[in-house]
Amino acid sequence: MQDIATRVWNHKWKIDPIVRSLIDTDFYKLLMCQSVFRNKPDTTVTFSLINRTQSVPLAKLIDEGELREQLDHIRTLTLRRGESTWLRGNTFYGQRQMFTPAFMDWFEALRLPPYHLERVGDQYELTFEGAWPEVMLWEIPALAVIMELRSRAVLKDLGRFELQVLYARAMTRVWEKVERLKSLPDLRLADFGTRRRHSFLWQDWCVQALTEGLGGSFTGTSNCLIAKNRDLEAIGTNAHELPMVYAALTRDDAALARAPYDVLADWHEEHSGNLRIILPDTYGTEGFLERAPDWLAGWTGIRIDSGDPATGAETAIRWWKARGEDPTEKLVIFSDGLDVEKIEQLHAQFAGRVRVSFGWGTLLTNDFRGLVGDRLNPFSLVCKAVAADGRPTVKLSDNPRKAMGPAAEVERYKRVFGVGEQVEREVVV
Amino acid sequence: MQDIATRVWNHKWKIDPIVRSLIDTDFYKLLMCQSVFRNKPDTTVTFSLINRTQSVPLAKLIDEGELREQLDHIRTLTLRRGESTWLRGNTFYGQRQMFTPAFMDWFEALRLPPYHLERVGDQYELTFEGAWPEVMLWEIPALAVIMELRSRAVLKDLGRFELQVLYARAMTRVWEKVERLKSLPDLRLADFGTRRRHSFLWQDWCVQALTEGLGGSFTGTSNCLIAKNRDLEAIGTNAHELPMVYAALTRDDAALARAPYDVLADWHEEHSGNLRIILPDTYGTEGFLERAPDWLAGWTGIRIDSGDPATGAETAIRWWKARGEDPTEKLVIFSDGLDVEKIEQLHAQFAGRVRVSFGWGTLLTNDFRGLVGDRLNPFSLVCKAVAADGRPTVKLSDNPRKAMGPAAEVERYKRVFGVGEQVEREVVV
Repeated sequence: MQDIATRVWNHKWKIDPIVRSLIDTDFYKLLMCQSVFRNKPDTTVTFSLINRTQSVPLAKLIDEGELREQLDHIRTLTLRRGESTWLRGNTFYGQRQMFTPAFMDWFEALRLPPYHLERVGDQYELTFEGAWPEVMLWEIPALAVIMELRSRAVLKDLGRFELQVLYARAMTRVWEKVERLKSLPDLRLADFGTRRRHSFLWQDWCVQALTEGLGGSFTGTSNCLIAKNRDLEAIGTNAHELPMVYAALTRDDAALARAPYDVLADWHEEHSGNLRIILPDTYGTEGFLERAPDWLAGWTGIRIDSGDPATGAETAIRWWKARGEDPTEKLVIFSDGLDVEKIEQLHAQFAGRVRVSFGWGTLLTNDFRGLVGDRLNPFSLVCKAVAADGRPTVKLSDNPRKAMGPAAEVERYKRVFGVGEQVEREVVV
Repeated sequence: MQDIATRVWNHKWKIDPIVRSLIDTDFYKLLMCQSVFRNKPDTTVTFSLINRTQSVPLAKLIDEGELREQLDHIRTLTLRRGESTWLRGNTFYGQRQMFTPAFMDWFEALRLPPYHLERVGDQYELTFEGAWPEVMLWEIPALAVIMELRSRAVLKDLGRFELQVLYARAMTRVWEKVERLKSLPDLRLADFGTRRRHSFLWQDWCVQALTEGLGGSFTGTSNCLIAKNRDLEAIGTNAHELPMVYAALTRDDAALARAPYDVLADWHEEHSGNLRIILPDTYGTEGFLERAPDWLAGWTGIRIDSGDPATGAETAIRWWKARGEDPTEKLVIFSDGLDVEKIEQLHAQFAGRVRVSFGWGTLLTNDFRGLVGDRLNPFSLVCKAVAADGRPTVKLSDNPRKAMGPAAEVERYKRVFGVGEQVEREVVV
């Protein structure tokens, strides 16, 4: 017997909104947003969507009207009362009132600023321009919307039982990964999979699978909404956008060379403990650590987000030792292109030598590889700050395939930061 | 835990189609269609939507784009294999092969012809023009679509629990009616509620409630799809459109006066037993019966569809007696604006004197009166043949409020059929 009321309810929705909350975003975005709100509130930035996997023709797959409906829906969102209460009152990284009343007042009044969308060939040009603290909050929902619309475009062709089997297989795959990870002693792992997830519900399911399967080894999720709903820790610290924008704002080479450290000096003022995590690869890890002031060696840990992760971690260990720090007390967070094999390898190599932690992203929340041919395979979509106060941003990374910025500026940055030959690595996600 | 596959499936539909099958229509439409296909295949007709309840501003309530999507969807439908098998092989009114191979071949190849839709003030002008056997099949789906879009427009404003309560109340109401009807001895009642139903699922639920509650007193449903799916009798005979079009095609008063009997002469050729039901009110019941040929008195019964039903039935009884027929062997089918009180009254007055049967329509399948203020109250929407081969049709009815046609033609018909003063009765549905 059909439940008519439920069915009518389900079909009343004009659209099935993908992002339904302003806190359906990564925790580090909010931390960084508060830092920017305090330190650089008047900076104007441009964020731009970049599909690094050009073989996925997003504009052919995703209807422009549907994309606009989803983005327009996000612009209707405001912080709900319960969400605000949670941000104001919850303990994050052991600390109460992580978010200041001034920031929360601002956030409660916020609606996301306009977007600019244009189809260019088979890709979309999606950009956001305006005040940094506002525009930066578009990154995660914009990515999540495009990823999920792409999933839906592929799922459209599947029958009811094909869908049932598809999800059954994907669930089995996640669960088999969990079973393997269970056997790693003292594993610490968090979900970092919001931005390139298959769908919101799927991320939510994956998080529940990790909670159930990994117990205390699962440290939490970067997704604030899921952390709130599922009573988990919200996880995350800072990202490349801070040094990229700080660097773009500088007026000479000397200031540019200082910019990455200025970012962390500001962060040092604001945060302590496990939130003091260095992200060293924006303009090359080696040079960054060599020239780093001593107070940075006192920070809690480092996040390895590009290049060969083992090499990056060994570099960090050598650096800590050279600065008289005990690596076994330091935290190394791996967060680049992880899957279960890589996690096992890195765990085997570094467990005991440092405190190891994993931020597992796309291949946790979007591993449908091979389940509908290659049509649901994850791909490398990012949404980055490309300009600040009218000046282009540059990223060098430890993997030149992840580099971005105008060629002349890239050369200048390489010179200033002393970056030489780099090894190219395939960018899966 | 969400069933993600089911949820994805539910949200994949661009629209939630209201009419999903060519046999989601009244059985008598198919009987008449076969008759027209045999006797008047080349007649061109125009069907037109008429909202007799002008206080319901359909064009304000229903989005034109959504209406077009629903109508366009109906034009994509063709007879499914199982539906064709059922029509070809099922027993209707005790007879096998009710539908001839020639008709079924034609029906299998059919798609409904184009429609013309225009907003005029707060109402829609919706017309269908073309070959009679094709155009006539638009009537029921067109009505059902508009009725259900109107329901949806009202339901749009309701929350999830309001919907739950709404349907709980409506179900309670139907069930209380069933409980009352249960006590009527030898009741015979069928569902005639397709065209003005609240929704397809709701009609389906009502039919199941009658099946469960009334047992053998529930004789079946006019809806072919529900009859097929629920293994019930498909019920229905013929309607006003036959005499209206036959009459419009005549060239002089003498032929006009004969037209209603010509219709039944054709029907007499094709059908026997319980399908030989006179519908006498198109141009006035009194005159029709007075001038009827004797072979018509030998028919099985009569359907009372306008005017005071008790008066109509008494008239029929007197007529049968005058023609030497035994009324207790005759069937009287009441089908106009019935609800449970009226059914009880008519049952009390006529049970035993004739074989009584009820065709319960709108107040079975669309009684949400008072449940959302008056916003879900049923209203009087019809879709009628308004012209045949370029000549206007006329209906007089036993209730002048149901009359239609150009004034001069109405006067001519009244003269030809000897219709004098008539009593106006409110048209509820």
